[in-house]
Formats: sequence, C-alpha cells, structure tokens
Amino acid sequence: MENANLVVVGSVAYDSIETPTQSHPDVLGGSATYFSLAASHYARPGIVAVVGQDFRPEHTRLLQDHSVRLDGLETAPGKTFRWGGRYDKDLKERDTLFTHLNVFAEFSPRIPAAFRDTPYLFLANIDPDLQLQVLAQCTGPRWVACDTMNFWIKGKLDSLLRLLPKIDALFLNDSEAFELTGHRNLLEAARWIQARGPATAVIKKGEHGAILVSKDQVFVVPAFLLDSVADPTGAGDTFAGGMAAAIAALDDTSPEALRFAAAMGTVMASFCVEDFGPFRLARLNMDEIRDRLRRYRELIRIPDRAI
Amino acid sequence: MENANLVVVGSVAYDSIETPTQSHPDVLGGSATYFSLAASHYARPGIVAVVGQDFRPEHTRLLQDHSVRLDGLETAPGKTFRWGGRYDKDLKERDTLFTHLNVFAEFSPRIPAAFRDTPYLFLANIDPDLQLQVLAQCTGPRWVACDTMNFWIKGKLDSLLRLLPKIDALFLNDSEAFELTGHRNLLEAARWIQARGPATAVIKKGEHGAILVSKDQVFVVPAFLLDSVADPTGAGDTFAGGMAAAIAALDDTSPEALRFAAAMGTVMASFCVEDFGPFRLARLNMDEIRDRLRRYRELIRIPDRAI
Repeated sequence: MENANLVVVGSVAYDSIETPTQSHPDVLGGSATYFSLAASHYARPGIVAVVGQDFRPEHTRLLQDHSVRLDGLETAPGKTFRWGGRYDKDLKERDTLFTHLNVFAEFSPRIPAAFRDTPYLFLANIDPDLQLQVLAQCTGPRWVACDTMNFWIKGKLDSLLRLLPKIDALFLNDSEAFELTGHRNLLEAARWIQARGPATAVIKKGEHGAILVSKDQVFVVPAFLLDSVADPTGAGDTFAGGMAAAIAALDDTSPEALRFAAAMGTVMASFCVEDFGPFRLARLNMDEIRDRLRRYRELIRIPDRAI
Repeated sequence: MENANLVVVGSVAYDSIETPTQSHPDVLGGSATYFSLAASHYARPGIVAVVGQDFRPEHTRLLQDHSVRLDGLETAPGKTFRWGGRYDKDLKERDTLFTHLNVFAEFSPRIPAAFRDTPYLFLANIDPDLQLQVLAQCTGPRWVACDTMNFWIKGKLDSLLRLLPKIDALFLNDSEAFELTGHRNLLEAARWIQARGPATAVIKKGEHGAILVSKDQVFVVPAFLLDSVADPTGAGDTFAGGMAAAIAALDDTSPEALRFAAAMGTVMASFCVEDFGPFRLARLNMDEIRDRLRRYRELIRIPDRAI
C-alpha cells in the first residue's frame, strides 16, 4: 500500500448519540474516524490516535477496508474514549451528556516513521500542546491545518497562539471564532486569525455551511440542502477531511484549489449527516460524490441576465 | 412618468432602532419603503400604504426622487406607524420595544386606478384579509408574492390559507416557516407551502441568506459577506424588493429568472444593512449594484477540478 499523503491526528471514539427521534449507544466516532473515512475516497489518509482494548475488530476492519493507514493507531490498556450527546429538536444545539476520556486522557501522539514526511497534515481538535508536539515530529509538511475548540481557547490560549504561526489553516466554528478573536463579524474574526499566522481561516457555520478567508480571497460555501438530517455528529470533521483530501489529491494549495476543496468538504459533510455515525461515509462511492458535487454546483448556480 | 410595473402594499413607518453601538429615533422605515427603494433601481415601483399627517415632506421627496409612484400613498388624520426595536449584540435577535400602529390600525388598502393592472404585485406583511382585499382589486397580475409573519400565522391562519392558492410566491423567514408548517427542515417546510398553492416558497435565513424552492428547482442563495453590518432592519423587505424588481425588469417568471432575481435580492439586501434605515439604498447607483453582483458571483464561485 502506498504511503499516506494526508495524516490526521485526533480521536477515535465511541459516541452515544440522542436525537429527538433516535438514540444510538456506542456508535463509532471521533474526529480522526470521520476525517479519515471522508478522506479515504480520494486521498490516502493515515490516522494517529489511541483506542482502548475494547475497540472492536469490526471497526478496525472498517477503517482498513477504506485503506485508512493505521500505523499510528495505538491500542492502550483501558477503554476507548466515550462521548455522549443529545441534540435539540432542530438538531442545531447539543448538550454533552458525558465525556469519558479513558485512554485518550494519556494520549501522547507518536508519529510513526511512515507518516513523518506526510505532505498534508491535519491536527484535529486536541490539546494545542499535543498539536505542537506532533508538528515537531514531522519533517515539514507542505500544508498543515488545525482544528480547535472553546475548551482550548479558554484553557490553553498561549499554546494555541504559539501554534498559529506554524500552521497554514485554522478550522473552527463561528462561536469559537468569536471566543478566540472577540469579533462577531466573521470577516473580522478571520482577519484576526490571519494576522496571527495561518494564511487561511475556515469558519464553520453548521447547517449554514462555512466561509474560507485567505489573503487573496473570500469564499462562501453554503451547506448542501438535504430533505432530512439524521445526525449532525462528525459533520465538521468530515468537512475538514473532505477538504484536506481534495487538497492532497490535487497536491495543490493554491487559492483555486482551496476553493474547490472546500466545496468537496461540503459535499462530504452532506453525506455524513444522512445517517448516524460515519456509516454513510463508509458506504459511499465516487460516482455518488461526483453526482452530488454536480448537484451542489446547480444548487447555487446564478444564471446570467442583463439588468 | 410611465406606469408602475411593480406595486407593493405594505407599511411606511418611522422606526426607532437601537443596536449595541448606535441608537436612532424615527428613522424612515416600513416594508413598502425598503421594498420600493430597492426596487426603484431597476423597476418602476408603486406604493400602496398610509402615513399620518406627521409624515415629513423630505421623506415624500426621497421616494419621489427615486421615481417611486405614490398614487397609493394615503395621508390619514393622526400619526404615522411607529415601531421601536433593540438588536442584541450580534445583530441577530431583536426585541420589539413598542408598536404604535397609529394610522396603520385603520389601514384598508385602496388600489388606485393606475395600479390595478400592475403585472407584478407584492403583498408585504399585513393582515391576510387585507392581502385578499388587495388581490380582489387587481385585474390579474402576472406574478403575486406575499410576505407574512408569526402574528398572522397564529391569529389569521384561515385567511392566510385562503390566500395561498391565489399567490405565486410566499416569502417568510425560517422560524415562521416552522410555525406555519410544523417542519423544521426547510425543504419539507417549502414542500408543505407549495402543496397549499404558491409555486414558489422563499425562506429567508437572515445573515445566512435564503432558499428558493419551486417544483422545478431548489436554489440556495447565501448572504453576501460584509465587513460590518450597521442595521439589519429592512433587509428582508429589501431582499424581496430587489428580487421582485428583477422579475419585473426582466418581465420573466421562469425558474431561471427567479434564480437570477433572488441573487439580485441578496445583493440589494447587502447594501441595505450597511447603514441605518433605507439610506444606503437611496444612495445607490447601478454601477455599484452590478459591481456587487459580480463580487457576489465570485464569492460563491467553485472552480472546476477533476477529482
């Protein structure tokens, strides 16, 4: 198997998810899972994560079946990270019911030799000190992106600010962008982020899509409109995985490639939310993906008219 | 002056608007004001509304200077409709501080002879019984659209449901769509509306834009991204005015024309929110409008790449 060209460092977890209509315990989840399954359709993802001894062989097989490189998937004594969440009636807000870090509490990512020279690297939402450690183990990737969350913005701001000059893109959602920057306007928030290092800020707006801001361009990517959403869990990581995989597949970090990649991320996220957990991503094929990209282009097409 | 080709029936008001940074009393406002000023740039709008004896001559002149046909603007004894609102810190939610209907309480729209055969008609957010009365006075417009709000959905649902089969498009925001249809999913809400008459449902999502759903197509129109927003008041009516004016200007209600028109509505709404009240709309010219349409197309452009 060819080497990974897109390494993700993050979590592999079992999620217990409640929506107004369904409840599923111990669904395969975690940022690295969603990211890598999305990416597997057109890039060669590799995972750096830790699971417990209870991690089910069928889930290892699921990842292997999608050619996800597992060189960096460590099994540690204890149980796999578990998270429980309950969505509100319109699937927009969610409450965390529990977080059992388990083996994730001691996670100290070690990048295996086969991954160290990966050209594309995604640091999913973990402690920014660990994100810095990962970067120190890699030999100059071409493009590094990073996700973060309120917890680290509050508790590890110094480390996060040390990380920013070392990465190319920061992914975060709109409320996190406000918390980090103090700006409610998304463009102002993005400019604040760019002034601290990353050439690109990707601000996610949930069901409304995302914006991508870099020096050269502003790109608005509305979400794909679906008849029904089963479970929004993992949509943000899937968006990042679909986007980073397109960059890796094209081996191109130009503004135009980033635009196209963000559209691909949106397409992948639209599949993710159609089913509980990452299983829609696992069932996908390239024909469906290309067809949805076509439909997505059509969804936002503005005809020419003279006025 | 040529006859109006787009008549709006709605309110002309004085708004007292508070945002976290500014406070402006008695700003010219009302749905018909925003709608017609937006429309005036490329259609021939006419207003049917009522003002009080305190309505300031400079505001009549402002509308006249934009060639808004005022044949249907009645002056009644008493004071002009006044509304006061306060926006929250991110300008997303607002509280109504007061509503003084004044002369608007007795508003019974009379369509002047010059307007009766208008090809395009917009029934802004007023009592659906009055919207029905207006329709009865017109001689078969080519395209009728209507806006409504929670107040009428709660209090005049029967009248609203009687109106729906008589109109071509219903405009409402996402929370109103849920209240009317019981569907939180916007596509399901739109299908519910279409099943009750209007060929087109336009669901507005505030700062996130809007969606347009008809039998033949679904169109997602994200909002134009601005560095700063001064005052969101009137953005929805401006969107409707900019959209309806494009339909009237093209004299075309085809699916492609509706798409283009919704993009024009988005462009006009983006100007509206740049200043308090409708004054940015009043200061606009077609070069600025066309330039922003170009920038809007660029904002959402997805390049072609093979993947």
